[in-house]
Formats: sequence, C-alpha cells, structure tokens
Amino acid sequence: MGSRVVVIGGDAAGMTVASAVRRALPEDDEVVVLERGSWTSYSACGIPYWISGEVGAPEELVARGVEQHRANGIDVRMGVEAIALDPEARTVSLRDGDEVSYDRLVLATGAEPVRPDLPGIDGTGIYGVQTLDDGQALIDGLAEQPRRVVVVGSGYVGLEIAEACIARGFDTTVIERSATPLSIIEPALGEQVAAAMRQHGIRLLAGATVTGFTLDDAGRVSAVTTEDESIAAELVVLGLGVTARSGLAAEAGLPLGAKGGIVVDEHQRVVGFDDIWAAGDCVVTKDRVTGDLVHVPLGTHANKQGMVAADSIIADLSGGTPRISFPGVVGTAITKFCALEVSRTGLGLEQAREAGFDPVAVSIETTNVAGYMPDAKTMTVVMIADRSTRRVLGAQIVGAEDAALRIDVAATAVAAGLTVDDVVMLDLAYAPPFSSVWSPVQVAARAAVKAIGRAPG
Amino acid sequence: MGSRVVVIGGDAAGMTVASAVRRALPEDDEVVVLERGSWTSYSACGIPYWISGEVGAPEELVARGVEQHRANGIDVRMGVEAIALDPEARTVSLRDGDEVSYDRLVLATGAEPVRPDLPGIDGTGIYGVQTLDDGQALIDGLAEQPRRVVVVGSGYVGLEIAEACIARGFDTTVIERSATPLSIIEPALGEQVAAAMRQHGIRLLAGATVTGFTLDDAGRVSAVTTEDESIAAELVVLGLGVTARSGLAAEAGLPLGAKGGIVVDEHQRVVGFDDIWAAGDCVVTKDRVTGDLVHVPLGTHANKQGMVAADSIIADLSGGTPRISFPGVVGTAITKFCALEVSRTGLGLEQAREAGFDPVAVSIETTNVAGYMPDAKTMTVVMIADRSTRRVLGAQIVGAEDAALRIDVAATAVAAGLTVDDVVMLDLAYAPPFSSVWSPVQVAARAAVKAIGRAPG
Repeated sequence: MGSRVVVIGGDAAGMTVASAVRRALPEDDEVVVLERGSWTSYSACGIPYWISGEVGAPEELVARGVEQHRANGIDVRMGVEAIALDPEARTVSLRDGDEVSYDRLVLATGAEPVRPDLPGIDGTGIYGVQTLDDGQALIDGLAEQPRRVVVVGSGYVGLEIAEACIARGFDTTVIERSATPLSIIEPALGEQVAAAMRQHGIRLLAGATVTGFTLDDAGRVSAVTTEDESIAAELVVLGLGVTARSGLAAEAGLPLGAKGGIVVDEHQRVVGFDDIWAAGDCVVTKDRVTGDLVHVPLGTHANKQGMVAADSIIADLSGGTPRISFPGVVGTAITKFCALEVSRTGLGLEQAREAGFDPVAVSIETTNVAGYMPDAKTMTVVMIADRSTRRVLGAQIVGAEDAALRIDVAATAVAAGLTVDDVVMLDLAYAPPFSSVWSPVQVAARAAVKAIGRAPG
Repeated sequence: MGSRVVVIGGDAAGMTVASAVRRALPEDDEVVVLERGSWTSYSACGIPYWISGEVGAPEELVARGVEQHRANGIDVRMGVEAIALDPEARTVSLRDGDEVSYDRLVLATGAEPVRPDLPGIDGTGIYGVQTLDDGQALIDGLAEQPRRVVVVGSGYVGLEIAEACIARGFDTTVIERSATPLSIIEPALGEQVAAAMRQHGIRLLAGATVTGFTLDDAGRVSAVTTEDESIAAELVVLGLGVTARSGLAAEAGLPLGAKGGIVVDEHQRVVGFDDIWAAGDCVVTKDRVTGDLVHVPLGTHANKQGMVAADSIIADLSGGTPRISFPGVVGTAITKFCALEVSRTGLGLEQAREAGFDPVAVSIETTNVAGYMPDAKTMTVVMIADRSTRRVLGAQIVGAEDAALRIDVAATAVAAGLTVDDVVMLDLAYAPPFSSVWSPVQVAARAAVKAIGRAPG
C-alpha cells in the first residue's frame, strides 16, 4: 500500500500540486483532492470578464475540468468540505461526518472576500467575488436587472467589476475609503484613474466610509449608507480585498501571518508541520524587497507555489531533496479600467519609508512609441529608488495602450536587485513603433539618477 | 583661454556628447560640432516611417535642430566634412582646406550602408538608407513613380523599407541571400516572417544572391540580376546592413574592430588615444554575454554611449573621475512587418555554439492575453539557454499585437545574468487582458528547464 497525498482545495494551487504529484508518484500512491465547490482549476481573475460578457460561459475559465483530472488518476471529490484537521492523527474531518487520513497534506483553501461586520452586511443582494460559484451568484443577481449597483472598494477587483457593470449598462457607484481609487498606486496616479472612472459615467465617492446597508422587509439590500449619505442600490458588490481562508489551519494550530495567511518555508511546507504544505491564496509569502511576509493572492503565485510544493512533496516521499524553491514576490500587479492601463511592482513610496529605506520617488511622462509616430500616447511612470544603495525599489505606470506591461522590466529589475544606473544601461527594445530611444522605465530611471545624483566615480 | 572639444558628427551620439559637455564646462571652453550633412539630432530609425508616409516631414524626425543647439552655446558647423585627423598635432583637416585644432576629440561619424563591389552598383536609382539626406534622396526617387522596386537584403531596415513600399503601392521584390528573411532570428521564425511578406504581396526571393545591376544607357538601373534570373526594377534599395564610417579613424591609426568599428574602453575613450573618444554607430562595443567586441549600430546605444563619453570628457577636463560606464549590449532588436511583430535579444543558437556555450534552444507557442479572452493571439517564443550554468543566453519572439515588447523581460534577464530557473520564478504582471498566468517569456523558460532538466537539489 502506497502513501496518500490529500489536497484541500481544487483550484490553481491545489490542482497544480495534485497533478504534478500524481505524475511523479508510483501508481499505488493515492492523490485525493477535496473541493467544497463545483469547479476545479479555474481562473478567478477571469470572473470580471465573464460578468462583463467578454467571456461567454464559466466553462471557458476552467483550464481543466473534474473529469480530466480524474482521467489523470486524481481522486477528485467535489462538494466535499473539510471542517477540521488533526495534524497528530493525520486526519481531515469532513462536513458529512466522514474522515480522510493522509500521509502528506496540502492546504490550498484559497481566500475569501472581506465582509466587514457592518449592519445589514448579510442582506440579500450583497455579493463578494472570489470563486466561480460567487461569480455565478452575481451574474444571477445582475440578471434581475437591478437599477443601481454599488461597488464597495476600488482595488483592482472593484475596478474590474465596476467596468463590467457600466459595460452592461448599470447605473454604477463606487465607494472608496481612501482619497483616490486603487490604493496600490501613488495618489497622484490614482487621480488619473478617478478621472477615467468619472469620464466613463461611474459615480465615484472617494474618501467615503461605508457604515452599513439598508435592507427592506424581505431582507434585501435597498441602500448603502456612508457617514454622509445613503446611496440607493438594488445590488452591492464587495470589492474590499480578501483574506486567507485559513480557519481550518488556525483551529489546528498552524502558524498564521498577515491577513490570516499560513506561514510556510521556501518549499511551501508549513513551518513546524513536517507533513503539511500550503500554497496559493491561503499563504503568506516573502516580499523579495523587504523580506517581510505578505499576503498577495494571485493566480500567478498560486501556480508557482503549487509547482514548488509538489517538488518538495515528491522529494519527501521519494527520499530526495527538493530542487526548486519559491523566492517570494515583488508585488507586481496590472489592471485596466476601460482604455486606461495601470500597473505597479515593488514598494510604493510610503511602503519604502516604512520598510526603513531612504527612498526617492520620481514621476515622468513619456510616450508608448517614438513621439513623432502617429497616435503616440502618453503614459506616466513613477519610480521609487533607495538613495543609499541606488536600488530600484518599485515602479508604477498609468497610461493608454501599450503602457502597463512595461512594468515587467521593472519587476525583473527589482527581483534581480538592479540599481537605477543598471536600468539606465539596459539594452531594451527600440524601434519607433514600439518605444522611444529611451524606454519608459529607463526615462524614469534617468530621472531617479538625477534626483539621487550620480554615483561618485 | 579654455579648452576646445571638437565633435565630428551631429547626430544622436555626437550631439548628446556636445550638449552634455556644453552644459558642464565653463563658458570659456569651446564645444565645436562638425557635421557634413544638413541635419542634427535626428532619428535615422524613423526614416522608413517617413518613407511610408506615417511621418509627414523630415523635420518631425529631428529631436533638436541646428539653431537650438547653437542657442545652447554649441558651435555647430553644418556641411563641413572632416577628411583627416592628426592625433599628434591634435588637428582635424577639413575638405575646404581649413584645419581645426582640438584639446579633446569625439568621433561620432556614424555608419554607412554596405555597398558591395558589384557591376552597376553605382548606377542611378540605387539607394542606401542611413541618413536623413539618404532618406530624402529615396523619397525623391520614389516620387518618380518607379513601376517596380527591388529591396536587396531583408534585415530590419530592408523589411521596414519593403513594408513602406507596399504601403505606397509599389510592386516590391525582396532579395535575400539566406534561406529565410531577418537573419537575426532563428530560421523557423524567419519562415513566419517570409509567410507574412508573401501574404502582403511582396515577392520574396530567398536563398538568392545578387550578382549585379543592369543599367540603361543613361546609367540608370533597369534590373537586378541574381545567379538565376534578372528582376526588372526602376528603383533599388540596398538593405545589406551597415559598417562603421571610420575611414578617418583608420587613416589616423586608431584601432578598429568588427565592421570597422572603432575600439573604445568602457568610457568610450579610444584605446591607446587619450584625447579621443568615439560613440554611436562608428564604434564596436562589448557583447555582455560573450565579451566579444561587436558592431551594433542603434540609436539607443548611441544615446547612452554619448552620455558616457561626455561624463568621461568632463571628468578628464575637470580633473575628476568618470562616474558612469557603458556596460555593452545584449543585442536586443525589435521590428514589425505589417501586423507581425518580431524581436530578439542575446545570442541565437548558432551564435551561442560559436561562443563556446553548450546551448539548448526551445520554442513554444502561447497567447498575448489569457487564452479565454476574446481575440487572444498566438506568439512563438524561442529561448536559448546554457546547459551548464542554466543562464538565459537569448530569446526571440514572433507574433501578433502585444508580442514583441515582451522581449524586454528577456533582455533584462540576460543583462542581469539570470538563469532559466530565476525567470520561471519572476513576479511578472498577470491579469487576463494582458497575459496568461505564466507570462510568455516564462512559458519559454519553463520549456528550457524541462529541456535541461531541473537542477539537482
């Protein structure tokens, strides 16, 4: 009889682990996946585009369905909810009363939308968006043709949902606590996003705090209240971010960090628990710039962490040593609001100060193509650098087409520990239809060099 | 009386040096620029878009005109050709018989189109494209409405000119000696470019060697001959690449490298000549991967080298030490042919072999956005990596919109010496309208890891 690897959660991280482990282990080892929902291996990031109608059906967001995973030899159990785990006994208790024992356990339980403890929050018509099942519920809600939609929060999920709502013709209000939307970028860039939102017909209430939800007699939401006013709404979407779905881990005594993320080592092994790994939106991971443990729920990390966890489990079961590790993240994010593209990587100015750096922030405007080409569009690039080490700490971009993806140069530079001087001297792609002779991130790096002063010879 | 800095050549490199030196030096120092042509500080790379009509007038390609430079205190002398230099006497002789003495000299003489020594090559109607004056001559030639245009060579200038010619409705043939166009990319990718050229109505003669040009009685070209056939043509464009315009340097005994490029140190100082600097298309520069000296004429390098030369001259004249140096290039290039985007960086497979690496090349197909998004387009990414060090040596991309600029991640990775494993773990921008969960260059890096095998634990 072989070993049994049990994975809790059947989305990106969980199914990546299960698939890689299944391929590597001998046939008499078992790989069991417990998924409480109705879908496996789907793109949660694609949900806003399903809601907007750009993606026609939820099946299109599914990279690999249950039957495919089963055909690959994975024992996927759908609609099965784990409610407790016993690390000593190496068992998982299920809601239906059953118990599953494991030799190696993987927690890939994902994240859950923040639902602040406000009056009326549990009313009908108030939606979070995290899973495909959540997405279906929201689509069903929108099918009832609410006259007015309120989105609470303007992080990237909030923004994408708001865009989907105006694309579908709903009267849409976005309420944001900060003075500008999209708090992952500097306020000056946030102003550009705010202007674009208003230009596209969204009512943006910035600097407004939601105090509760008015429900009608049937328990259905009818308004969102702030400190100053009441905004009528038949449907509300919560875009307040997510926290790790780690109740199971917490109750079992596993170590938790920021936003409830499970603390793991560089092989995704839960610290202090040799038989348990965790990956994806339920973990905290190292910020490569500060060294801090941060909660950055994103499919791209889930996939990598799943790959790393599988490598470690395979090494563990086969008596080898793991060959890869997860180095952490630099906080790269990208989104768009209508035609406005937004991206960021590394630390913002305040984050850099809080982390103990002596940062300088510069902001430049440049074009996406050579300035003399027809249809050259402007973008703003912000760069944050450390005065003493001259390292690039972060960058942010807001602009029209072909702007936001330039952040990948900065993301690579931050990960590689490059200085502003290094970035100035990079050999980046140049031809008039693609870039000016100095690429946008280099224009920002030159401004940073000017702000810091050239290094002494 | 102060020092006199003389710069020969008034385009990107020369005017960058002149401007920076002028700003830094005391007022009684002189900065003199000798330019044999009619333009300063222009984008030679923009010439194909002027020829196509996308850019309306040559003035639009000029970043800064003669009068602006003069207003900034630079003594720009137009139409003045240097014909000899005497490093001992520190003098430059001019075609008009005058002589200019210098304390510090900068050679920024650019490049000149390769004109092979073939019968008829000096006929009327045969054009090279390097300077704005060349561009004007070609435009004047095209204004005579030649029935048939032949472009000899299919490097990126050849391709861009061919695109401009079909955009303007000319019957266009491209003759290329290699089996596929654009020899800076792997042949399999070149096939995609060939298909796009033919699809857009270009007659592509690949694997064909030009043997000469047939001239009519007036000395005007009437046909281009290859080993196999004669192709009627009223206008011919030579796109056979360029060599450094370094005759002046050669006659003065300055050291020359590949394609006649002047050999300089990391401060752009001519090796063995303490009072002479050189920058831009007339120099050879270090390939950061192989360490070899290579000739890579491109405006983006000219600007950086000009900045570095200026820093060194200022340090030299003020008794300081230079604060920046030019680290070399990784051979990044980008172009497009109609809707097909093409880019490359680092070494190709053959180059890597010749440089003594033990390379592996992988080729993958992926999409520019998440596969489930509407209008997802396919791109091919090739990655070349070294088996023993696992370093990324190069990458190439061919694809539709939003494909080619992804090369900048690879260019940064090559410059930073990252391994394929490092690239797999980069935190690159992910959202469905911008990328799949694994960014294109990462998909290639994963394939490279698979081809090499994971590193032992």
